[in-house]
Amino acid sequence: MTASTSTFRAIDVIRKKRDGVELSAAEIEGLVNAYTKGDIPDYQVSAWLMAVVLKGMTRPETAALTDAMLHSGDVLDLSSLPAKKVDKHSTGGVGDKTSLVLAPLAAAAGLAVPMISGRGLGHTGGTLDKLEAIPGFNVNLPVADFRRVLATCGCCMIGQTAEIAPADRKLYALRDVTGTVESPYLICASIMSKKLAEGIDALVLDVKTGSGAFMKNEKDAAFLAELMVETGERMGKQVVALITDMDQPIGKMIGNALEVIECIEVLQGKGPEDLRELCLELAGWMLQLGGASKSVAEGKQQSAKLISSGQALEKFRQMIELQGGDPRIIDDSKRLPQAQHTLEIAGTKAGYIASMQCEQIGTACVILGGGRERKEDSVDPSVGIVLHKKVGDHIAVGEPLATIHYNSEAKAARAQQLIEASCEIAQEAPPKRPLVHRTIGKVESKSAEKN
Amino acid sequence: MTASTSTFRAIDVIRKKRDGVELSAAEIEGLVNAYTKGDIPDYQVSAWLMAVVLKGMTRPETAALTDAMLHSGDVLDLSSLPAKKVDKHSTGGVGDKTSLVLAPLAAAAGLAVPMISGRGLGHTGGTLDKLEAIPGFNVNLPVADFRRVLATCGCCMIGQTAEIAPADRKLYALRDVTGTVESPYLICASIMSKKLAEGIDALVLDVKTGSGAFMKNEKDAAFLAELMVETGERMGKQVVALITDMDQPIGKMIGNALEVIECIEVLQGKGPEDLRELCLELAGWMLQLGGASKSVAEGKQQSAKLISSGQALEKFRQMIELQGGDPRIIDDSKRLPQAQHTLEIAGTKAGYIASMQCEQIGTACVILGGGRERKEDSVDPSVGIVLHKKVGDHIAVGEPLATIHYNSEAKAARAQQLIEASCEIAQEAPPKRPLVHRTIGKVESKSAEKN
Repeated sequence: MTASTSTFRAIDVIRKKRDGVELSAAEIEGLVNAYTKGDIPDYQVSAWLMAVVLKGMTRPETAALTDAMLHSGDVLDLSSLPAKKVDKHSTGGVGDKTSLVLAPLAAAAGLAVPMISGRGLGHTGGTLDKLEAIPGFNVNLPVADFRRVLATCGCCMIGQTAEIAPADRKLYALRDVTGTVESPYLICASIMSKKLAEGIDALVLDVKTGSGAFMKNEKDAAFLAELMVETGERMGKQVVALITDMDQPIGKMIGNALEVIECIEVLQGKGPEDLRELCLELAGWMLQLGGASKSVAEGKQQSAKLISSGQALEKFRQMIELQGGDPRIIDDSKRLPQAQHTLEIAGTKAGYIASMQCEQIGTACVILGGGRERKEDSVDPSVGIVLHKKVGDHIAVGEPLATIHYNSEAKAARAQQLIEASCEIAQEAPPKRPLVHRTIGKVESKSAEKN
Repeated sequence: MTASTSTFRAIDVIRKKRDGVELSAAEIEGLVNAYTKGDIPDYQVSAWLMAVVLKGMTRPETAALTDAMLHSGDVLDLSSLPAKKVDKHSTGGVGDKTSLVLAPLAAAAGLAVPMISGRGLGHTGGTLDKLEAIPGFNVNLPVADFRRVLATCGCCMIGQTAEIAPADRKLYALRDVTGTVESPYLICASIMSKKLAEGIDALVLDVKTGSGAFMKNEKDAAFLAELMVETGERMGKQVVALITDMDQPIGKMIGNALEVIECIEVLQGKGPEDLRELCLELAGWMLQLGGASKSVAEGKQQSAKLISSGQALEKFRQMIELQGGDPRIIDDSKRLPQAQHTLEIAGTKAGYIASMQCEQIGTACVILGGGRERKEDSVDPSVGIVLHKKVGDHIAVGEPLATIHYNSEAKAARAQQLIEASCEIAQEAPPKRPLVHRTIGKVESKSAEKN
């Protein structure tokens, strides 16, 4: 990727993409580098981005874009750490809190997890917002501290630094205001460039599909998943993608402090069945890809043992302490931020929960203050929603459906309306949706377990 | 078109166009107005333009865009002039000089021709550049002078003013650098907004097709023609489009001063057959649409008489004088700028001229200095090419093919190469292409003459 860019002309690259001609790696690299340096204006890049949204990209183009964005900044070199470096990325959902369980769990299995995460986006939560619910927890560590924590306890969880994939930051800001966010090729390059900059050996992708996901239908989710897997493999990484269900929230708790509590429950061998199962599934793949287990099934068993032995929880405690957080929250959840009031929503019609409009529930949490309506908003870590019923459960009139944790009556009223409207009641239980819809990646054949 | 734009959000308009949703007139007007005022940035408009290029526009959208661009500036009110206001617009070609004949010809028939023209673009010539070959001729008249000349002699030919369609000027500059020039919808809105700002009643469009046109194939030319005709009709104007041949230069002369000479020849009842015939055809339509003749055939006859009587030439002389030019050029072409040298290109192979790569001949003239290679270049009015043979003519070895008028040996050598390479010689004469391929517009049925 050292082609000369001296003859690079942005207009030619725009026209080619417009006309459906495949771009060379040198042309894509030229565009990304020139834009990152400020040598070509926003208006040329936005025209190019729109052409990409509407004309798509080939696999080599997508890999070249990912590579150019990845190399626009620092790529961590973690080769001095003897452990295999493995990470997990989720495309985002509601109540999707597995990272807080998986990082310490994989670290307890002897792997290194150098996890760089994001904040809540739209109706979905973000790992950084959840971690910051822990008093004192610092997600803005300099790279040297990141390495130290990683070497000490095997996992470290931080936010994107200025040095990591600056092209992505600049391109994302432009996509956000030019209607060019919704492209699997651009989403793939954005995710993969940041993840590969972590210096990892293997990556497990959790691609969500359903009413609470960005990709509402499974076909779109599978297309993005295949794109990311192939792009990662082209760049010499082991990558697998699980298409998982996001047609209802994961677990029972939505909201930053509440989700930390639920993760601790899972690490204590408790917690809701679906969250526990999803964590074990993803951990099984992380352990298998990282070489800590021979198969995914063995990885799941091993993970379950690391939970029951308390080793995974111990890792979490250690990481919190190393990142400046108060580890006492593990044994005393009252040390986490708590909302002033709670409000119970009761069932008004008897029957089975047939479906939940998952995005609406996520939006209800954002309205309470648990997410951001505008970029510059701050997040209230204490608010959220506890679901007492999930899809397939029976509910009687007056029986509790959910509890809202809130600090503003007006916001609670709006959230209540949304939650009530999101649940459809039927006289029969709906067919059960699987937790993992599909698994995508060549590594699958090596360990063809069925769930 | 007075919808409130208070709730206008550029991002919504971009997303809709990207997703193929039809935009309302208010949305399009909101975008154009906000951009012209500088209220939305280039990078949002360029993303929208690329979405238009790739997703197209409906007829109502195209009309709304034309209308919004038209009303972004002044629209001339020529209702105080009793005559019908008629104009002609060509999409551009090589040796395409009919405007200089048509404006005085239609004026001699009692119509008013308020013609606002452009400069050469790419390999094609421009009316303003041709007029400026006439010593003293001023194409930059203020609107008041434009009205005065028009009222006095029935025609006036100027360049675009700052007050006419400023949205088009701003959008065109952005399209030029973002690969979004090539869209029939955007081309239609650009042409029609400027032409309708002239305050005309009727418009004859000369849409070129062939190797010297921007629309190389007839299907594309017909599509653009239909779009412009329908857009004009939606805005209450009489519009007809002729798809005419541009597979070889029109007439024998290419170059600014040379083309003025050839136009004078036609106005004197002489000149090459194809140029004379095209002028009469277009004039016939102008007279019919303007009500100066009952049919196109009658309009053609009347035009031929206005030429043979010398009245059309007299109008040309009068207009030159009123616009500050030297009318003595009409009787003494040596008063026009003359190149220092001429070079005759002779045939090297006997046979019939089977085809001419017309764009190459246009480019040869640009190379000589007769057009602009970059926007900021100045034009040399004296240089050009005189063709002694055209498609279908027989040529013997050593017989003159063309004469180059030049001021630089190096440039002449490059032009000679291009001209020689542009002509294909065959042993049989090619089938004759018609001058007018098709006529598009509802007005056609009113006077269904065949050529």
